[in-house]
Amino acid sequence: MASVDSVSAAGSSGGQVRKEVRVGIVGYGTVGRAAAEILTGHAQEIRERTGGVSVVVTRICRKSPKGAESGANGVRVTADWHDVVGAEDVDVVIEAVGGITIANEIVRDALDQGKPVVTANKALLARRGEEIFALAKKKNLPVGIEASVAGGVPVIRAISQALAADRIVSVYGIVNGTCNFILTQMEQKGLEFAEALEQAQAAGYAEADSSLDIDGFDARDKIAILARIAFGHSVDPALIPVTGIRQITATDFHYAHRLNSTIRLVASAERTSRGIHLAVQPWLEPRNSMLAKVDGANNAIFIAGERVGTQMLYGRGAGGNPTGTAVLSDVIEIAQQLARGQMAAGSMPGFHKPEPAQLSPRLQPMNWFLRLAVNDRPGILARVAEVIAHEGINIDSVIQEPHMPKDRLSFVITLEPTLEETALRAVNEINKFEFLRQPVLLLPMISEIEEHV
Amino acid sequence: MASVDSVSAAGSSGGQVRKEVRVGIVGYGTVGRAAAEILTGHAQEIRERTGGVSVVVTRICRKSPKGAESGANGVRVTADWHDVVGAEDVDVVIEAVGGITIANEIVRDALDQGKPVVTANKALLARRGEEIFALAKKKNLPVGIEASVAGGVPVIRAISQALAADRIVSVYGIVNGTCNFILTQMEQKGLEFAEALEQAQAAGYAEADSSLDIDGFDARDKIAILARIAFGHSVDPALIPVTGIRQITATDFHYAHRLNSTIRLVASAERTSRGIHLAVQPWLEPRNSMLAKVDGANNAIFIAGERVGTQMLYGRGAGGNPTGTAVLSDVIEIAQQLARGQMAAGSMPGFHKPEPAQLSPRLQPMNWFLRLAVNDRPGILARVAEVIAHEGINIDSVIQEPHMPKDRLSFVITLEPTLEETALRAVNEINKFEFLRQPVLLLPMISEIEEHV
Repeated sequence: MASVDSVSAAGSSGGQVRKEVRVGIVGYGTVGRAAAEILTGHAQEIRERTGGVSVVVTRICRKSPKGAESGANGVRVTADWHDVVGAEDVDVVIEAVGGITIANEIVRDALDQGKPVVTANKALLARRGEEIFALAKKKNLPVGIEASVAGGVPVIRAISQALAADRIVSVYGIVNGTCNFILTQMEQKGLEFAEALEQAQAAGYAEADSSLDIDGFDARDKIAILARIAFGHSVDPALIPVTGIRQITATDFHYAHRLNSTIRLVASAERTSRGIHLAVQPWLEPRNSMLAKVDGANNAIFIAGERVGTQMLYGRGAGGNPTGTAVLSDVIEIAQQLARGQMAAGSMPGFHKPEPAQLSPRLQPMNWFLRLAVNDRPGILARVAEVIAHEGINIDSVIQEPHMPKDRLSFVITLEPTLEETALRAVNEINKFEFLRQPVLLLPMISEIEEHV
Repeated sequence: MASVDSVSAAGSSGGQVRKEVRVGIVGYGTVGRAAAEILTGHAQEIRERTGGVSVVVTRICRKSPKGAESGANGVRVTADWHDVVGAEDVDVVIEAVGGITIANEIVRDALDQGKPVVTANKALLARRGEEIFALAKKKNLPVGIEASVAGGVPVIRAISQALAADRIVSVYGIVNGTCNFILTQMEQKGLEFAEALEQAQAAGYAEADSSLDIDGFDARDKIAILARIAFGHSVDPALIPVTGIRQITATDFHYAHRLNSTIRLVASAERTSRGIHLAVQPWLEPRNSMLAKVDGANNAIFIAGERVGTQMLYGRGAGGNPTGTAVLSDVIEIAQQLARGQMAAGSMPGFHKPEPAQLSPRLQPMNWFLRLAVNDRPGILARVAEVIAHEGINIDSVIQEPHMPKDRLSFVITLEPTLEETALRAVNEINKFEFLRQPVLLLPMISEIEEHV
């Protein structure tokens, strides 16, 4: 615990020792900048919350070390992250550069030098989390990761601390604000995907290259992190099946509304009798459900525990201020440890388990929503229905709007409760038909009752 | 930190020291029993989460020390709480007796003996919290209070830890499951209050003497605790205005539905330019809002921060298992500290502040719902409307169902945005009219837009 020495006792009065913990920020984009601003703007509140410990920024690493911040309030600005991580006047390092390669170097170097680290980097944690936590354990240093999933929503604390005594059954929800913003726009304004994506980009909710978000990879990293913490096993994100929202159309929302439902991208992790079922895919949700009420760039995560029942946490999942607040929640916790001279690696189950989780298929039979886009001609429904019957599946409803153009006809079939593997077998057969204009869109349908179980 | 010595190092292998932390439970009702059962049932999960620390029950104090538990698993059962708190084989004390007088003695005695305490006792914390935390600080001992508000929902952690860097603007929500169960029954089944209360009692959601719940005093204690933590000032619960749900009728729900709304008991704490506004009262909520979706005995708390935006936490607010899980979340955190030999009082802002919060009236003009129960005769509406006009208030709507019995006529007036003190002045005048069968029911109306600001 070398860094205990580097806590400066700034003075003492009336028997109470005042303390100061010094923070170095590497990466000065949206999150790094927000963290610095909050530390300055809320200095008094933070000192009250910590019982007298000041948390101050001493060094910042940014790409172009110039501008108003340089030298302000005595903060030293550099373009070389080593100048932050290795500095004597830095007790805690915030990694806010993003990406994987350099971020990993920064985190490891900080730990090697005996300094606790806080990061919001889900891609890094999803891929290298086990190595990072192994090093942190060896060094007995805390690594703060609250901001890595759902921005300001304290889902990591909820699972790892608040529900530490419970056996988690499932964790699922909306963890990508970009997709949720796009889907909400499509739902409310009847937009096509491309139009809604443009609006998301214009509103600053989507990057120019938004594939990580809209193809579900960002959500996949996040559920990989949550599943580790909930179920206590290592999880390789590459093994999680992922379906994004690119193929969702305005017509799909039209049919969803006919079913009194809407469409949301859901990441889910569920304990089954055969292991852990993990998936990222769009769900058909009752419009009246809590999940459907999550609009815009918000996030919502349901956590079901054997004893505690189902909880839901809702809030802003991205953006500088919410994510910066989450980063600082970890910094403040570490600062309190440092000020007491009591630093601990903490326990982050799952990141410490070498054995990977046993992955399971979805074992619960579900209702399914099949949307078929076809070149219309006689006999299509008969042939599709025959495939479905062949798999022993009962059709619950068939919905086809009248007066659709023959060359852009879409219709929907919903299935009675069916195992996913059975539904997939049927869809694979249907996908062979030459009259299909694109592969069948297959979405699980969640009933409002299931949501609260 | 005397009790560090009493942590037994149960052995060591491969360089890793196994540790055991011993828990004494005082009070063996719903919560105490659930805590004991979970510690036994989830022993392995807890050991994994703590990184190898076992948490075991060694002593239980209950009213009649007999039955199956006595002696099982080596647990010693007693009827005298001193035998638990003072025992050498107890490292952490769970206070689960309820009430105030003896509970306070138990908590203070445990702290005096150098033992950390966990309690779900909101009445005790709301009234004696400052004294308890002062003693804990003096002894440098943690006091766990997560279970005191909203059962298994980790709202205390969310405010005190996850949002430690933010400036909280408001905290409000449904914190009493009994009232929410009753109101949900009335909403869904058209029951009168007395019928719904009977059902709540039959379902085990309400005590025979349910006044603490239905008159709002339980919610008042809880918002007093949350306000302390959110705003960092001492709060005297006796100063918080409280209106329960006893006067709500089936007809009120009928009118609420006409306004596309429902009725929920809401406890609220809000920062204003003049201090903190605190209240417990029924609100008229849009049926489509998240708060209206909270049904049965569930709880939901909204927390709005300057930086983090609005968060919502939802889940089961009462019952042995959820509350027991919350109690154990604190026990486990303390056990980890004990096992590391690093115990800390922690910081619970508000409980450490001698200056009480400056209480403020509600400064935001709101829409109001006035229900008048009258003995019908000509001229009533004219006289009521005249009082309202005299206060300079604009009426937004008047709703009166046709064909109501003359001697049990109810009608509703809704007001355009009006300051609470102005609305109250008008209501006080109206209450003087001899044609009123009971005092006017005055509820603030929340728009769905406001909910998410």
